[in-house]
Amino acid sequence: MSKPLKVAIAGLGTVGVGTLTLLRSQADLITQRAGRPVTVTAVSAKDRSKDRGVSLDGLHWYDDSAKMAAEAEVDVVVEVIGGADGIAKATCEAAIKHGRHLVTANKAMLATHGTELARAAEAKGVALGFEASVAGGIPIVKAIREGLAGNRLSQVTGILNGTCNYILTTMRESKREFAEVLAEAQSLGYAEADPSFDIDGIDTAHKLSILTSLAYGTKVDFAKVHVEGIRHISALDIRFAEELGYRIKLLGIAKRTANGIEQRVHPCMVPIASSIGRVEGVFNAVVAEGDFVGRALFEGRGAGAGPTASAVAADLIDIAAGRIGPAFGIKADQLSAIKAVPMSDYRGAYYVRLMVLDRHGVFADVAAALRDEEVSMEAVLQHGRAPGETVPVVMTLHSTREASMMRALDRISKLDAVVETPRLIRIENF
Amino acid sequence: MSKPLKVAIAGLGTVGVGTLTLLRSQADLITQRAGRPVTVTAVSAKDRSKDRGVSLDGLHWYDDSAKMAAEAEVDVVVEVIGGADGIAKATCEAAIKHGRHLVTANKAMLATHGTELARAAEAKGVALGFEASVAGGIPIVKAIREGLAGNRLSQVTGILNGTCNYILTTMRESKREFAEVLAEAQSLGYAEADPSFDIDGIDTAHKLSILTSLAYGTKVDFAKVHVEGIRHISALDIRFAEELGYRIKLLGIAKRTANGIEQRVHPCMVPIASSIGRVEGVFNAVVAEGDFVGRALFEGRGAGAGPTASAVAADLIDIAAGRIGPAFGIKADQLSAIKAVPMSDYRGAYYVRLMVLDRHGVFADVAAALRDEEVSMEAVLQHGRAPGETVPVVMTLHSTREASMMRALDRISKLDAVVETPRLIRIENF
Repeated sequence: MSKPLKVAIAGLGTVGVGTLTLLRSQADLITQRAGRPVTVTAVSAKDRSKDRGVSLDGLHWYDDSAKMAAEAEVDVVVEVIGGADGIAKATCEAAIKHGRHLVTANKAMLATHGTELARAAEAKGVALGFEASVAGGIPIVKAIREGLAGNRLSQVTGILNGTCNYILTTMRESKREFAEVLAEAQSLGYAEADPSFDIDGIDTAHKLSILTSLAYGTKVDFAKVHVEGIRHISALDIRFAEELGYRIKLLGIAKRTANGIEQRVHPCMVPIASSIGRVEGVFNAVVAEGDFVGRALFEGRGAGAGPTASAVAADLIDIAAGRIGPAFGIKADQLSAIKAVPMSDYRGAYYVRLMVLDRHGVFADVAAALRDEEVSMEAVLQHGRAPGETVPVVMTLHSTREASMMRALDRISKLDAVVETPRLIRIENF
Repeated sequence: MSKPLKVAIAGLGTVGVGTLTLLRSQADLITQRAGRPVTVTAVSAKDRSKDRGVSLDGLHWYDDSAKMAAEAEVDVVVEVIGGADGIAKATCEAAIKHGRHLVTANKAMLATHGTELARAAEAKGVALGFEASVAGGIPIVKAIREGLAGNRLSQVTGILNGTCNYILTTMRESKREFAEVLAEAQSLGYAEADPSFDIDGIDTAHKLSILTSLAYGTKVDFAKVHVEGIRHISALDIRFAEELGYRIKLLGIAKRTANGIEQRVHPCMVPIASSIGRVEGVFNAVVAEGDFVGRALFEGRGAGAGPTASAVAADLIDIAAGRIGPAFGIKADQLSAIKAVPMSDYRGAYYVRLMVLDRHGVFADVAAALRDEEVSMEAVLQHGRAPGETVPVVMTLHSTREASMMRALDRISKLDAVVETPRLIRIENF
């Protein structure tokens, strides 16, 4: 039998322990599939004495993961600490510097330093595997990098954050408001104590920036992602969406247009009947569109110990089997700079909800603002009348340029009869 | 630049021409992703003079594809002729014998000779790529073989034949009968003049037997697949399915049970709300369940020039980039024999439709037959009464052993009041 692939795990949280458990329980199967054993020989975490429910007997313990990455006699370092910089990045850099392969689940780090890490790994001839960083157990990195490699992709769209999808699904099912459902998700452990990374769209944007590079051969450019979260989504909007035949999802979209590449994260209305509209709860999904393959959809669990460990294991098996290539599918020095399309140039359809005082002539003012900005209305919904009171008025607008829409909305928001900030949700017609 | 990977294409039907077109139109992108050009230098087909809409200038032409596989100066032979034996197999064997990598879309051949071809390829140190043989453009072979390699899979289920799914979808949407929709599908080119390979489930069974080997590390064993097609599905059953909350799909299912591996292809009722129940028209989908990843779904176009060429290209890029491993994920001599579960030992829920003379006491006889075989009823549907006339009676049965169900059904079919062969459709509760 060939000699084992020796692995060090940096970080013994949920994912680290999950990976250790997987590599142990599937040892026979992995040996068959990798052509040799994949064996954890070293681990590091902050607190050695903590009970993690797994035996650490016989493993080299390091308090300092960067030291482990530099010194442990291993072939691969698995970094599952997290965080864009600090000890996680130091560990990854040390692993590469010492000629060890690197497998990481760290989307924040890849979104910020991905190109640089890929370049360093290539220079050292080591692998940089990050299947676990996007969409958990769904093997989407491999699918885009290899499975669809014969295609020029035009769009990659994903539900990439299970917390947001859970909140939006639960809001719809229970007809409750965002704050209440978030609090419940926190108490159930589905959302963090500080949920902003998830609900403000940052986690989705990290993952999207990685998918963009894989799809289009561009440098990872998180800074160019337009990011909006789901804090402003109300039960009212979800109800109107349903009435219009849509579901509200937080999507990450990387789209190739004639003017460059759009990278945007924002709540979207998608048709209820669409594949992506039906992805509910904590599930993630990615839709990729290629010129030869057409539309392909990948759906599965996007987080948790099991799915993430599954992704880490896939990278380790590839490395053990010698299936190693450039991290983002093409050589790091061939990755091109993103020509980003500014959000003001985005074109699409919109849903707008106004809260207006129900009185004569209001709608004429709204319509005039739209007309002056050449925004064309598709439909208007207003249920019943309530003279003198505040009522929601919902409009859908035909495809228009974002800048025009925003100018019209700015003017509308200043009308006396418009009593709250107008709510805007983009419509993606899949 | 590294030297090109030279490719010969055997067969210039839709897929062969599609592959040639893809490799030409994406040449720059493939060179980047493969690390070197992938260039077609030889082709073979029966009729040189036929206009295929692509230029064959500068390509070596062979009338005999086996001769091409033996003699052409190429690194890879792409076999897209089709057929389990004959010239397709001779071409593949010649390619391997002469040390050339083989990429094939030929599921019939793989289902029959897959293990033997994998063994021959391994002995020669060449790749055997067959991403295009299952589910068209969906990179499901790679997903199971590599992406989910860290998992012990418990079940792989697929809608693997676009023709059948198109027919079933159209029957439901248009409320028409099988024969009429099949005839229309034939006139539209969605079904072959001789449709039996598709509609009798054989094509699905070929593909399933390949997925089984990938999922469980077993020898390809098409003979052990239980196969039923969709000829007997009627508009009436589709309507009852809808009423019960189900869609009827032709599924290929490979399931690991305590008694061995089930491989079965038959129409199934699946919940309308399930991911697989929502896969409509010509689309294919595969659901894989692993112990760490949970459930993952892959959906896309299962046939046609573009999707199939996309899959062929993925294999070629892997070969060009040196990502080569055992065809079925583990070494051919480690593939184990399938311990097949006989269909009589299958356990599951059932839908049964009887056409009975509506008269006193009939149902007591049916119920007695079920009771004697220990088959337990979940629900019965009969709409209205029509004394003395023939009416449909639909029952759903709780999970039971196939042998018991069949004995009960045999007895029921012999009742005087039961005027047609009872129809049975298995229920899969995803």
